[in-house]
Amino acid sequence: MVERVKTGVPGLDEILNGGIPRRNVVLLSGGPGTGKTILALQFLWSGLQLGEPGIYVALEEHPVQVRVNMRGFGWDTRQFEQEGKFAVIDAFTGGIGEAAKREKYVVKETDSVEELIDVLRTAIREVNAQRVVVDSVSTLYLLKPSIARNVVLQLKKVLSGMGTTSLLVSQVSVTERGFGGPGVEHAADGIIRLDLDEVDGELVRSIIIWKMRGTSHSMKRHVMEITDKGIVVHPDKVLKTRRYVLMQE
Amino acid sequence: MVERVKTGVPGLDEILNGGIPRRNVVLLSGGPGTGKTILALQFLWSGLQLGEPGIYVALEEHPVQVRVNMRGFGWDTRQFEQEGKFAVIDAFTGGIGEAAKREKYVVKETDSVEELIDVLRTAIREVNAQRVVVDSVSTLYLLKPSIARNVVLQLKKVLSGMGTTSLLVSQVSVTERGFGGPGVEHAADGIIRLDLDEVDGELVRSIIIWKMRGTSHSMKRHVMEITDKGIVVHPDKVLKTRRYVLMQE
Amino acid sequence: MVERVKTGVPGLDEILNGGIPRRNVVLLSGGPGTGKTILALQFLWSGLQLGEPGIYVALEEHPVQVRVNMRGFGWDTRQFEQEGKFAVIDAFTGGIGEAAKREKYVVKETDSVEELIDVLRTAIREVNAQRVVVDSVSTLYLLKPSIARNVVLQLKKVLSGMGTTSLLVSQVSVTERGFGGPGVEHAADGIIRLDLDEVDGELVRSIIIWKMRGTSHSMKRHVMEITDKGIVVHPDKVLKTRRYVLMQE
Amino acid sequence: MVERVKTGVPGLDEILNGGIPRRNVVLLSGGPGTGKTILALQFLWSGLQLGEPGIYVALEEHPVQVRVNMRGFGWDTRQFEQEGKFAVIDAFTGGIGEAAKREKYVVKETDSVEELIDVLRTAIREVNAQRVVVDSVSTLYLLKPSIARNVVLQLKKVLSGMGTTSLLVSQVSVTERGFGGPGVEHAADGIIRLDLDEVDGELVRSIIIWKMRGTSHSMKRHVMEITDKGIVVHPDKVLKTRRYVLMQE
Amino acid sequence: MVERVKTGVPGLDEILNGGIPRRNVVLLSGGPGTGKTILALQFLWSGLQLGEPGIYVALEEHPVQVRVNMRGFGWDTRQFEQEGKFAVIDAFTGGIGEAAKREKYVVKETDSVEELIDVLRTAIREVNAQRVVVDSVSTLYLLKPSIARNVVLQLKKVLSGMGTTSLLVSQVSVTERGFGGPGVEHAADGIIRLDLDEVDGELVRSIIIWKMRGTSHSMKRHVMEITDKGIVVHPDKVLKTRRYVLMQE
Amino acid sequence: MVERVKTGVPGLDEILNGGIPRRNVVLLSGGPGTGKTILALQFLWSGLQLGEPGIYVALEEHPVQVRVNMRGFGWDTRQFEQEGKFAVIDAFTGGIGEAAKREKYVVKETDSVEELIDVLRTAIREVNAQRVVVDSVSTLYLLKPSIARNVVLQLKKVLSGMGTTSLLVSQVSVTERGFGGPGVEHAADGIIRLDLDEVDGELVRSIIIWKMRGTSHSMKRHVMEITDKGIVVHPDKVLKTRRYVLMQE
Repeated sequence: MVERVKTGVPGLDEILNGGIPRRNVVLLSGGPGTGKTILALQFLWSGLQLGEPGIYVALEEHPVQVRVNMRGFGWDTRQFEQEGKFAVIDAFTGGIGEAAKREKYVVKETDSVEELIDVLRTAIREVNAQRVVVDSVSTLYLLKPSIARNVVLQLKKVLSGMGTTSLLVSQVSVTERGFGGPGVEHAADGIIRLDLDEVDGELVRSIIIWKMRGTSHSMKRHVMEITDKGIVVHPDKVLKTRRYVLMQE
Repeated sequence: MVERVKTGVPGLDEILNGGIPRRNVVLLSGGPGTGKTILALQFLWSGLQLGEPGIYVALEEHPVQVRVNMRGFGWDTRQFEQEGKFAVIDAFTGGIGEAAKREKYVVKETDSVEELIDVLRTAIREVNAQRVVVDSVSTLYLLKPSIARNVVLQLKKVLSGMGTTSLLVSQVSVTERGFGGPGVEHAADGIIRLDLDEVDGELVRSIIIWKMRGTSHSMKRHVMEITDKGIVVHPDKVLKTRRYVLMQE
Repeated sequence: MVERVKTGVPGLDEILNGGIPRRNVVLLSGGPGTGKTILALQFLWSGLQLGEPGIYVALEEHPVQVRVNMRGFGWDTRQFEQEGKFAVIDAFTGGIGEAAKREKYVVKETDSVEELIDVLRTAIREVNAQRVVVDSVSTLYLLKPSIARNVVLQLKKVLSGMGTTSLLVSQVSVTERGFGGPGVEHAADGIIRLDLDEVDGELVRSIIIWKMRGTSHSMKRHVMEITDKGIVVHPDKVLKTRRYVLMQE
Repeated sequence: MVERVKTGVPGLDEILNGGIPRRNVVLLSGGPGTGKTILALQFLWSGLQLGEPGIYVALEEHPVQVRVNMRGFGWDTRQFEQEGKFAVIDAFTGGIGEAAKREKYVVKETDSVEELIDVLRTAIREVNAQRVVVDSVSTLYLLKPSIARNVVLQLKKVLSGMGTTSLLVSQVSVTERGFGGPGVEHAADGIIRLDLDEVDGELVRSIIIWKMRGTSHSMKRHVMEITDKGIVVHPDKVLKTRRYVLMQE
Repeated sequence: MVERVKTGVPGLDEILNGGIPRRNVVLLSGGPGTGKTILALQFLWSGLQLGEPGIYVALEEHPVQVRVNMRGFGWDTRQFEQEGKFAVIDAFTGGIGEAAKREKYVVKETDSVEELIDVLRTAIREVNAQRVVVDSVSTLYLLKPSIARNVVLQLKKVLSGMGTTSLLVSQVSVTERGFGGPGVEHAADGIIRLDLDEVDGELVRSIIIWKMRGTSHSMKRHVMEITDKGIVVHPDKVLKTRRYVLMQE
Repeated sequence: MVERVKTGVPGLDEILNGGIPRRNVVLLSGGPGTGKTILALQFLWSGLQLGEPGIYVALEEHPVQVRVNMRGFGWDTRQFEQEGKFAVIDAFTGGIGEAAKREKYVVKETDSVEELIDVLRTAIREVNAQRVVVDSVSTLYLLKPSIARNVVLQLKKVLSGMGTTSLLVSQVSVTERGFGGPGVEHAADGIIRLDLDEVDGELVRSIIIWKMRGTSHSMKRHVMEITDKGIVVHPDKVLKTRRYVLMQE
């Protein structure tokens, strides 16, 4: 029977029929403001509560800000960082600035996928990480879409190979219905999509599991909320939009 | 509890649940004629009324015209400029022309993001600015879309790092539903979108808060007006269009 | 209170709440056959009737043909030209041909924006022009869209700086819903759009004021006619199409 | 009062309110199979019946085939060619082949617009042409769309300057709603569009006058037929499609 | 009266009002799986039954496979090939392989249009061909769309010039509504389009004659079937889809 | 009568009227998460149960993971591999890593189509393969779409020429309605499309046979399920969407 990792996001494990199959590399895709980063941090925090060490690769935000953001939801990682059970990899500052000097894991050349993977490998080993978040993987190939598939395959080899279960945050434009391009979409073991749609003049949030290797899962688009405690998914509330029927009538 | 900056735009603070969280860098996005510049100037003027110094970075318009435009709404900044509480950074004329010679803050090479950031840093320090508007940030990468994300990240580092709360005006075409491209949309702490839609032969204005880090906010599309006193948002009037449901039926 | 320039087009000043605010640089945008040139010539002719000298920059048509076209509507400019109150700038022939030799203002290198602006500056001064039409501004950047915004900004500096109120004719394709590209749309002080739509097998004309700095204006799409006396706008007739609601359903 | 040229196509002069104003250069635009060439040849043949000499510039078809096609509709041009009242300019064969050697007007370098215009000028003078058809003008810029506007302007100068009334056949793809690109659409004095639409499983033909300088005209989409005597337009039958309402709902 | 070539496809000659006018070069266009090749082979086989020799230019398939495919429908060409009344031109193998060595007509450089035309000319003469199929013409310009029109014109000159009636198979993508590009669509004497549409979850086949020089024809979209005897067209069954009404509502 | 290969997928052989005609090269096309790989592996496993040896070309996944995935459905290939009746060709690792060293068939240069075909040829001969799966063929031309048709033709020559029946997995983006591009779509002997559509907020799976040379087949879109025993097709359940009617209304 398949071993599962609990996301700890209320309602999400239920629609995943128990959690994400261990070692899966999952694309977490959505437009701006859909809650991708919050969900990813919540996944790591839940792991810490369950005794599963984790790593957050910060490509979009200063590591200090990441910790501030987490505390905003009541997720204080300081003790876990001291105990060596949680780490932020700074792939944002290039090691420049006062704060950056206090970071343990730093990617000096922020556009080097090779260095990133080296630092990631070391951190996973030292932290004994069970969970990893890369936020965002899109940044790694923003200017070179042709390497996207290769970047994801390289990450997958390390992340899955070293036994972690991971989320790759994939940023798409507000007008883009894809998940990050064909090479990326097919390479991932799973795809979770977050959406923000305007229905009758009001924005509504939803989540849909597009694919998940190794398990069946809800096939529905579920209503989702962002609260001050993090994300809540409603397994019993379905949003009936038709984003992915490609009829052209 | 999160510290907030009042926009002073009637109705807008209400749908922001109290204002923009301090230090947020907010994208103010919209097509031509949607009222972006008016809203941004009103944000600065409101700050001056509350004793919060501000800076307007003029990339689209002559500084003299900016002040004329403000006076058209009854916002006379002369005294504030004399007291060193308000400044216009001239990133439009390149220092050429009589009027430009009287400007204190001038970006000589108008296409140099580096110089702009230097001047901006100095001005923020001297004015002790709490609020900054960059109008428009799109101009900085109009001809080089590939640097857009980087420009926004650099600005964000200075603006947020020095403690200001800021609006980056993002110009999109009348036919463009995005907010300024994926790199920009994801890098901003917040996105406010202004729209001008033709409904049954009549143009209607609306505003929607697409995302705002650090606070919940109205999820509705609100009717907005431009009056001779500036912009007014109607928290109780919702415009039921469906701009951002990407169904393709 | 804002000073206004009467367009003299029946109905148009009414929906502009009195006319175009002085010194505004207005984009007059539309597809082929929508009546842009007629409206622009009528604007100049009306000025002459009111004692306001004017200039027509001919980029699309031979100056002789321009005068012929005007006479077709009963607008005979000969006396005004003799009195030095009206001028056509020939930016079409390059000074080649018999007729061209009789023109006073000629742009020799028809693709030189610099020369065009020099000649324009001289003509405005000599004619003491209050109104200027550039027909079309699109021609100036047809093959180099990347310079569009810059061309419009340069023209704006001269036209507004020298005190004229002006119309920049912007040609768009019959299938194009924009007004001439984002750089152009945002740089103009106003946008007037003319449309020709097929409704139930019949072409109908309409006009909409998309934006106009310094004044409120009708927010409706008005029915418009081309008669043998020129253009007539119907302030009380609204065409209920939905050209600019970007719902994608 | 405007002088008009009768097209001689039954029904078409009626919806043109009497014919095409003399010296107009008219774009005759449509997809494959819409009847552009037939209408253009019929325009020339009608001229011959009225004593108005004409010229057909053959860019798509062998001159011999052009004459065969005309005879298929009962339009035998032999006598008129002998009398020097009608000419086909061979811009198709490059002068290669037996038949081509018997042609009087030949463009040797078929991709040279300059040579084409030289030959055209000579032929108009010798034939004393009142009507000219260029079939198709699209061929002249098929591989270099950027020169399209310039080609049309050059032709216009010769055709209109020498007093002829002319049709420029513009080929568009079956899926293209434009008339041949913005430069071309705006440069022409008139636009006549032919369409072939599938309505409930049946193809229907229609014609619409999009613009025509110097005259008012029907604003309706008229049903059109191709008979063995040529084209017939039905002034009293309107086809209610909505090809050119650009609502995107 | 126009001379016609019977296609021999049940129902097709009827909707063509008797057949394809002799010497016409007809584009046979459709997406994958629409039956283009079957219809083209049936056209050749019918010719053989009527004593009209034919040639199939194989650009997509091994000549051996072509014959196998024909036999699958009961069309055994062996005797006709022996009698010199039918030939397959091998433009697929480049002459490589055992089977290819037994072919009489081989294009060695499969991407040379010149060699193809040479071989074709020889074969037409030797076989005394009345009918020719080129399957597919799209292959000849797949990687160089800019030469498409020229390729079709060259083929047309040979095919029509030597008196044959021919079908040029044009492959379009399943999502493409065009017939093979503007240059190609306008150069052909006729266009026959095959479609495969999903209506309420079921695929339906249809055929429509888009244009056919020299004859009137059915203007309807007819239901079509592929049976084990070949294609059958139903002149009395119309499929009411709306593929080619370009309303964008 | 045509010889057929049973896919062994419940319901699929029924809608194929008995199976895939022997030697056909079939494109198996679909977006991410549609079940392409599962169906392809099930096709190979079914072959093994019927005594037909098979080969899986692994371009997307580590060979070890492929076997793990198969065992997840109860398809244990170990014995068959030992008996030389089943092989995985490793075109993923480039021979790097411990596990890869134990693989028998390895493509060292993973982007060499030539080497892949060499290894494939050897493997087919040694295993005496009746069935082959290439997963995915898209990978071979992801960065060079212009060679797509050629790659498929080369594979077809080997696969069909050596007597195997094969599936080429074609990955398309979630937003792509095509099957992998025109060159690929027309070159394949058959096309099976898998879809995942959101209908009223719920994802539904379906399969449709778009074309299949040598046999008639169901023309309907059938509901499909992925169970823990593999894929099940429902011949009696039709999904009424309209993905492939290209009406643009």
